Amino acid sequence: MGVLFLFDVSVFAEERLVKDVVLAVHGGTAYARADVTPEFEKLLRQGLEHALRKGYEALQKEGATSLDGVEAAVRELEDDPAFNAGRGAVFTREGTIELDASIMDGKDKRAGAVASVTTIRNPVTAARTVMERSRHVLFVGAGAEKFAADQKLDVVDSEYFQTPRQRDALKRYLERELQSGDRPAGLEKQGEKTESKKSGSTGSSPHGTVGAVARDRAGNLAAATSTGGMNGKRSGRVGDSPVIGAGTYAENASCAVSATGHGEFFIRWTVAHDIAARIKYAGQSLSQAANDVIHGDMEKAGGRGAVIGLNSRGEFTAAWSTKEGLYRGYVTRDGQISVMLYEE
Amino acid sequence: MGVLFLFDVSVFAEERLVKDVVLAVHGGTAYARADVTPEFEKLLRQGLEHALRKGYEALQKEGATSLDGVEAAVRELEDDPAFNAGRGAVFTREGTIELDASIMDGKDKRAGAVASVTTIRNPVTAARTVMERSRHVLFVGAGAEKFAADQKLDVVDSEYFQTPRQRDALKRYLERELQSGDRPAGLEKQGEKTESKKSGSTGSSPHGTVGAVARDRAGNLAAATSTGGMNGKRSGRVGDSPVIGAGTYAENASCAVSATGHGEFFIRWTVAHDIAARIKYAGQSLSQAANDVIHGDMEKAGGRGAVIGLNSRGEFTAAWSTKEGLYRGYVTRDGQISVMLYEE
Repeated sequence: MGVLFLFDVSVFAEERLVKDVVLAVHGGTAYARADVTPEFEKLLRQGLEHALRKGYEALQKEGATSLDGVEAAVRELEDDPAFNAGRGAVFTREGTIELDASIMDGKDKRAGAVASVTTIRNPVTAARTVMERSRHVLFVGAGAEKFAADQKLDVVDSEYFQTPRQRDALKRYLERELQSGDRPAGLEKQGEKTESKKSGSTGSSPHGTVGAVARDRAGNLAAATSTGGMNGKRSGRVGDSPVIGAGTYAENASCAVSATGHGEFFIRWTVAHDIAARIKYAGQSLSQAANDVIHGDMEKAGGRGAVIGLNSRGEFTAAWSTKEGLYRGYVTRDGQISVMLYEE
Repeated sequence: MGVLFLFDVSVFAEERLVKDVVLAVHGGTAYARADVTPEFEKLLRQGLEHALRKGYEALQKEGATSLDGVEAAVRELEDDPAFNAGRGAVFTREGTIELDASIMDGKDKRAGAVASVTTIRNPVTAARTVMERSRHVLFVGAGAEKFAADQKLDVVDSEYFQTPRQRDALKRYLERELQSGDRPAGLEKQGEKTESKKSGSTGSSPHGTVGAVARDRAGNLAAATSTGGMNGKRSGRVGDSPVIGAGTYAENASCAVSATGHGEFFIRWTVAHDIAARIKYAGQSLSQAANDVIHGDMEKAGGRGAVIGLNSRGEFTAAWSTKEGLYRGYVTRDGQISVMLYEE
């Protein structure tokens, strides 16, 4: 498939469609291969497989919904230190950990999200709790944490999230920033070319997000996304992951989408909802819509990243504009698990 | 026009289109008429007129852009205690003031937003500063305030925002909540009928947002929105106003939109971007798209509110599903100002 891509994007896009999928996950856009050891690749592959298995098990239970599937899968990825969400999240430039997550139910478009939270062990569960037990959709910061504590969700010390790998990544980021040294830190402008290089998924700057899309036996869709954000982000910065319509969207009539990538661009291009809108209003297929959004104006402006999408017929697609591809996998109705790293 | 509405929505929608508009503002969905004194109506009318004049003046300056127009207009509405944004904002149930705002440039889809800020005098200016002087789009809470302070924006004590009118509104809200008393406070679920009644724009619960859309001489669009949120919201709750694609969207190829209403629904329906998507992908007119989104599935689910929209040809529209209408106004190229309260 990678070879076809060189000659014909539209053929490639259609090839990418997989059928009979009940759950799919992503673990963020891929790091430069040179930066990833075989041991770490194994951890990534195991982590994705494990999340798919847990999500699939959740979907098999009596009365289970697509929400149960995406929540279970994303929780596993949050708990897995190999991924930039929950434990293993990147650091802000101030050295804190600030997490964002969201979830959406394709049946009735209920949604929940939390942003900039520092003590909630599983932000995706907090997002679901906001959706199901509050009249709000989005809670941020201390208010989100108070809500989570009131709801008896698991709360941990911020150290729980911290890993030596991400601490090193922040150190390298700050060193690179010092070297570039031509302007005050954090004041690069939107859309500047330096910016996509600096924070892109290629190179040694970890930059990912985890997410899942699922379809239950009743044909209802759900999507969920969770992240530590962008390595070296300023404290208080929120990307696309908790933004319904940008990083996450689900609607039975169109598709469920979870995104990862340069969040600022994904917010400005309303990526997840734009894919759904092209399906609904322009009659595009899921894979065509996903590829057009990922490879359209946003890519020209320097915005790189990826999406996974699933529709109510069980058709799954992934699209990415990052050099190395996307860590991802899916499970079909019969329980068959497939995991892919890079452009496979 | 109000009479036509009773007979034919589609005709009415087209009637609502106004041409040659360079700037339009809204001051939130209208309160129940019985709750508004003639004196307060006068303040609302004056405030909208004043904002339109200031925005128009900003647009007349040499080299001015649509961003200058929307920022100037929204700043005036933020400074005006008659509106629920900046000074005069509603209180959270905890008695704090937490402000949200966003801005978007239709030329290149740059965007900026702040959420849950408590000391920034003009959140819309903070949003523009995030857009122009950071590489991020959205900052929340303390991080947003630190950024604003670093950028030397006007910072005020939270008391500056507080008005007796809104303090009374919170008191009434909490009393009503106590009376209803059938469940723990703040735990109403999404989509429950009680909810839209409790926090709807009709009745004495203030619930609004301010916003502006503009078109400059080069034909570029911009949109901005600012709010104190929903009266009696829980601390940390963020609505649609700072969410690009929900409360605010601008793109020269389609339209500029600023929304107001029940923010949770506007996030779930990605209202502002959905209007743009219908124009781009379904070939709808601006007014048709705005009316279809406001009067579609969202309204059936109980989500009420309003939008103003402007396209690059200078066509303006407003659509609302609230009982009493929308406080709004516009100014045409020749400087003619029109202000409307309720269903006029």
